[in-house]
Amino acid sequence: MFREITGFSNPLVKRVRSLRDKKGRREEGLFLAEGLRILTEALDAGRAPDMLWFSSESARHPLVETLVAATEAHGGEVFVTPRDILSKISGKDNPGAVIGIYPEHWTPLADIDRSTAPIWMVAERLRDPGNLGTILRTGDAVGAGGLILIDDCTDPFSVEAVRASMGALFTQSISKASWPEFIAWLRQGPGQLVGTSLNTDNDYQDPAYAPPVFLLVGNESQGLPEAYEADCDLLVKMPMMGKADSLNAAVATSVMAYEVLNQLRRR
Amino acid sequence: MFREITGFSNPLVKRVRSLRDKKGRREEGLFLAEGLRILTEALDAGRAPDMLWFSSESARHPLVETLVAATEAHGGEVFVTPRDILSKISGKDNPGAVIGIYPEHWTPLADIDRSTAPIWMVAERLRDPGNLGTILRTGDAVGAGGLILIDDCTDPFSVEAVRASMGALFTQSISKASWPEFIAWLRQGPGQLVGTSLNTDNDYQDPAYAPPVFLLVGNESQGLPEAYEADCDLLVKMPMMGKADSLNAAVATSVMAYEVLNQLRRR
Repeated sequence: MFREITGFSNPLVKRVRSLRDKKGRREEGLFLAEGLRILTEALDAGRAPDMLWFSSESARHPLVETLVAATEAHGGEVFVTPRDILSKISGKDNPGAVIGIYPEHWTPLADIDRSTAPIWMVAERLRDPGNLGTILRTGDAVGAGGLILIDDCTDPFSVEAVRASMGALFTQSISKASWPEFIAWLRQGPGQLVGTSLNTDNDYQDPAYAPPVFLLVGNESQGLPEAYEADCDLLVKMPMMGKADSLNAAVATSVMAYEVLNQLRRR
Repeated sequence: MFREITGFSNPLVKRVRSLRDKKGRREEGLFLAEGLRILTEALDAGRAPDMLWFSSESARHPLVETLVAATEAHGGEVFVTPRDILSKISGKDNPGAVIGIYPEHWTPLADIDRSTAPIWMVAERLRDPGNLGTILRTGDAVGAGGLILIDDCTDPFSVEAVRASMGALFTQSISKASWPEFIAWLRQGPGQLVGTSLNTDNDYQDPAYAPPVFLLVGNESQGLPEAYEADCDLLVKMPMMGKADSLNAAVATSVMAYEVLNQLRRR
């Protein structure tokens, strides 16, 4: 059963649109994901939207039908609306065929079962939503369990981060903690904390990584605080053959993550 | 000798500002780079700007002095201007301390000496300027020689690509070619063309890479055309342990590039 929304002034349009801003997301506890590919990935990960919006003018893709059925089975609401309202919600001239609204999922540290995955991502004051989403995407690819955000990171539920994650936001747990909270939790069990840093000569291929490995990446321009580096079990760096001294934060994390995965699959 | 520019309506401000658009860049053959870090990287790579702009209100950083001296020695012009004009040029509320204007550097394929580097990057219809800049940045890090753009890629001299490259744009050669031009040039000499693709079961760690290796990455959403894959010497893929079937294009290229570098440094 679809509800048809035809007016820009409909309060629901305004409410959904507010999810593009962090303030709106925090007030509602909801976020917005866009596009057939990402919503289908979410569904594959067992997540149907609370609200599904699609355009009344687009041809009805079979994947849209699947999403509609899943949304209804999950007790969610389905809205059909003109393309220009979809545009208004998504903030893009050319919106995706579908928009889904989901509850934000924050996993308390205490609820993480570290034994369920060999790799966990940890990001500290990460600023760029594209980097955050890309780290989630790589996390999914290497079989990581989730991402732990330290201190003030960019919002993982922003439209940009969700888009860059290409659906991995739905397969990865998302947690946040202060550094002392994180370290206290980490040291309650097994876990090798590995920081990528410029302040070391340790080649990232030299250590034998011992899962669960927690891969820590710092702020894009400042790297990790010294005190945090001191808490790491290992600091490593990638060889840098050129003029530059560092890699993009998501690239560095991904190169590290594949090194750990490659070691594990050789054992 | 500085020229002081105080008026928004100064034609030079308008001209420099036009470099934020592709049309303006192509007309002038110039591009714009911003921030002390990137301009200093450029200088380290032997490139002084044709024009250097800095704010009359900022404290004069020693690196600014170095840039001023280098610009003058190179025969370039130095402009000092109020911060709000710098803002207008850069299009950011909070512009970097300096803006440099450089001639675009396109290297004809015929001028590339493939023997000078073990790795070369090749991108096909890459759409995202952040990905393009990040691939340049990784290219610098792994000791690649340059980037060859195939078909219609995003502009490597856009403000976003330059920023994401973090200065690597100045250390890497930039070329463009159609696919037939590229293949004809490639086959005139040694060179292993390696495509990352979903259409193969070849693990990316299995082959022994033979430099010069040309790492080919396709369009973000469509990957490589089949005909281009057929021209490759090797197609490889990274293991994907999760729900998603692909990595971010810049990440995939970077993970590949580090694999090649790691093999070479073990030899």
